[in-house]
Amino acid sequence: MAIIVAKFGGTSVADVERIENAADKIKREVERGNKVAVVVSAMSGVTNRLVGYCDAISKLQDLREYDTVVAAGEQITAGLMALALQKRGIGARSWMGWQIPFKTTEMHGKARITDIDPTEILKRMEEDEVAVIPGFQGVTERNRISTLGRGGSDTSAVAMAAALNADRCDIYTDVDGVYTTDPRIVPKARKIKKISFEEMMELASLGAKVLQTRSVEIAAKKKVAMQVLSSFEDRIGSDLPGTLIVKEEKIMEEQLVSGIACSRNEAKITFIGVKDQPGAASKIFTPLSEAGVSVDMIVQNISHDGQLTDMTFTVGRSELTRALDAIEKAGIECEEVRSADNVAKISIVGIGMISNSGVAGTMFEVLSDKGINIEVISTSEIKVSVLIDEEYAELAVRALHTAYGLDAAV
Amino acid sequence: MAIIVAKFGGTSVADVERIENAADKIKREVERGNKVAVVVSAMSGVTNRLVGYCDAISKLQDLREYDTVVAAGEQITAGLMALALQKRGIGARSWMGWQIPFKTTEMHGKARITDIDPTEILKRMEEDEVAVIPGFQGVTERNRISTLGRGGSDTSAVAMAAALNADRCDIYTDVDGVYTTDPRIVPKARKIKKISFEEMMELASLGAKVLQTRSVEIAAKKKVAMQVLSSFEDRIGSDLPGTLIVKEEKIMEEQLVSGIACSRNEAKITFIGVKDQPGAASKIFTPLSEAGVSVDMIVQNISHDGQLTDMTFTVGRSELTRALDAIEKAGIECEEVRSADNVAKISIVGIGMISNSGVAGTMFEVLSDKGINIEVISTSEIKVSVLIDEEYAELAVRALHTAYGLDAAV
Repeated sequence: MAIIVAKFGGTSVADVERIENAADKIKREVERGNKVAVVVSAMSGVTNRLVGYCDAISKLQDLREYDTVVAAGEQITAGLMALALQKRGIGARSWMGWQIPFKTTEMHGKARITDIDPTEILKRMEEDEVAVIPGFQGVTERNRISTLGRGGSDTSAVAMAAALNADRCDIYTDVDGVYTTDPRIVPKARKIKKISFEEMMELASLGAKVLQTRSVEIAAKKKVAMQVLSSFEDRIGSDLPGTLIVKEEKIMEEQLVSGIACSRNEAKITFIGVKDQPGAASKIFTPLSEAGVSVDMIVQNISHDGQLTDMTFTVGRSELTRALDAIEKAGIECEEVRSADNVAKISIVGIGMISNSGVAGTMFEVLSDKGINIEVISTSEIKVSVLIDEEYAELAVRALHTAYGLDAAV
Repeated sequence: MAIIVAKFGGTSVADVERIENAADKIKREVERGNKVAVVVSAMSGVTNRLVGYCDAISKLQDLREYDTVVAAGEQITAGLMALALQKRGIGARSWMGWQIPFKTTEMHGKARITDIDPTEILKRMEEDEVAVIPGFQGVTERNRISTLGRGGSDTSAVAMAAALNADRCDIYTDVDGVYTTDPRIVPKARKIKKISFEEMMELASLGAKVLQTRSVEIAAKKKVAMQVLSSFEDRIGSDLPGTLIVKEEKIMEEQLVSGIACSRNEAKITFIGVKDQPGAASKIFTPLSEAGVSVDMIVQNISHDGQLTDMTFTVGRSELTRALDAIEKAGIECEEVRSADNVAKISIVGIGMISNSGVAGTMFEVLSDKGINIEVISTSEIKVSVLIDEEYAELAVRALHTAYGLDAAV
């Protein structure tokens, strides 16, 4: 007997039929002898509609009221899921955030979880009752409804799993797992069976949109095994059909590189001829940070003559205009500022890199062989990212996928 | 300074624009120096959609989950109304049933109010904050969301007004008041300025659908003055533009008859040749009550020969089939059972009847003059109802409206 938390996202509970389909999956889990808590999102489209109502009234909202409005979406799905489970002969009840209580900070609209009391839910699990919990919502110390921010249901599920000391947190979604890269770019992409929290965090933050980064962070910290799996496919007989996200130690066959991410949400800014003296970097980055622009990759060239240097860095593509504005206002001394948004960031991610040198070297070689120029490089313990011309993005991903032995056997 | 509870029904908060319009009305009330609590229904259509989801999953529902789902409708409107008021510079916050708390019995789906704690809301009213309360919902002793049954928002508003010791409970709706009769039948129908609780209860139960009967009952018991008024019309300058429902003593100019109601939701059943002996009536009415059929008007003719008699009574038109079923199964001894659903119940209602004889006589005379046959009569202290052929319904209402001096001056 295990305790499983199963989370269903918006497309998995889009209408009554899909809610019934999700309830069938829960039933199968219960029949395996497991104790289950279900976390549900709002039916797809509902949150957008509710947010739209709020925006139509006022853009500057009291976020306490905004939270009260939007949390209704998950409340509806939770009640309906409980009804669908009961229809299948399974004891079930819904638990609103304030009923658990699922406590959060007072920062409405993007509250953080502070405490979850699992006592009553655990007691009822003993009596074979399935708990149905609306994702995304909690209650503050002041007894107001709060929400965790968009995508917060993954976080709700992992936090609930930690509180229940669950054996696994299953994230049912519209893909059947985490892939070595985007299958739309590389048809030979393989589904990953097991991946470490650290790798998943890098992949999530690098644009693999399967999971909310924060949920993986919490899972890593609380040591909650996660599984990403499809709510639409049925692999009868397979106990773990998706991708498992676990502690590094649990991964036996270590790949050098586990996955390749490609992000087009990038823009680069280059300062030509900046004075090469202490404080030059801070003169550029302080105004950007004050304007709320996050800077990602940074590279500074060796100065030609010991006096002037070039500096290149990337920002989110949607923040480029704001960044250039901030730079202009700051009046930074330099010969020229260039910017471009036709760039892509390609990253290789793998726990294996820690103990293997030469991984990055292979990357640079492969790209060079294809005639692809690397504009910026940044690395971490388990990741190497390069910025290249966007035109070459697919070619680079395909070549690297093959080079690191990730292609599926056909 | 007065405390006013203002309730807006579904059509009055149908979309964001109407919510804004309702907020304008509240603003005007606040500018008059009043303290205001607003009770809101779900946006029109929302409750039906949510009920539809529940029904699609299962007809035999756990009403605790049903309540959790449908209560979300009012929750949404309450948050949006708070936002709309804040936009107008008015301090406002929403209060869910469980936050107040607004306590009810455990009878989910049609819970009754047991206790409302007004302390915090009254405190904040002193600080000029408007309380926005979702109608229809409460919380049980077991901390589950409950609902009061369809139309329960009127009841929520009156109960809230009683708890706050409010000076008036304004019911904003899609008509501008209570009329002497249905203006679609009698164009000369007049809007009533003041009416007693007792008369309003009779009119509500007789098919004037302006208010939920239960809300008027509570208002009468708790002595809460009500006003029915339009949320669409604006009578600038008029402090009390609608119909006031108050204690009898407060009505100065007493009309003999205040209003005329017409209900087509009637069917009659006649037993011909029933044995005229003790227990005959109970043999007929016990099976009906067991089948959940409410019997309204009853008339028993004097028996022709001391042995056999005829008995006629009315039931709701939608319950006729069920009533006839129950009768057949009970195997009641009689010569014949006849039924008809082409009947209408016409009622005159007026506090003035208590102290004036001859009111009923006028009614019978007027109907007789028009050649309308009265099939059954039933009376109470402030009401006379007659059952007639449905074909004559409009004619009867018009003739009575004129006879009792209710026609508006043209």
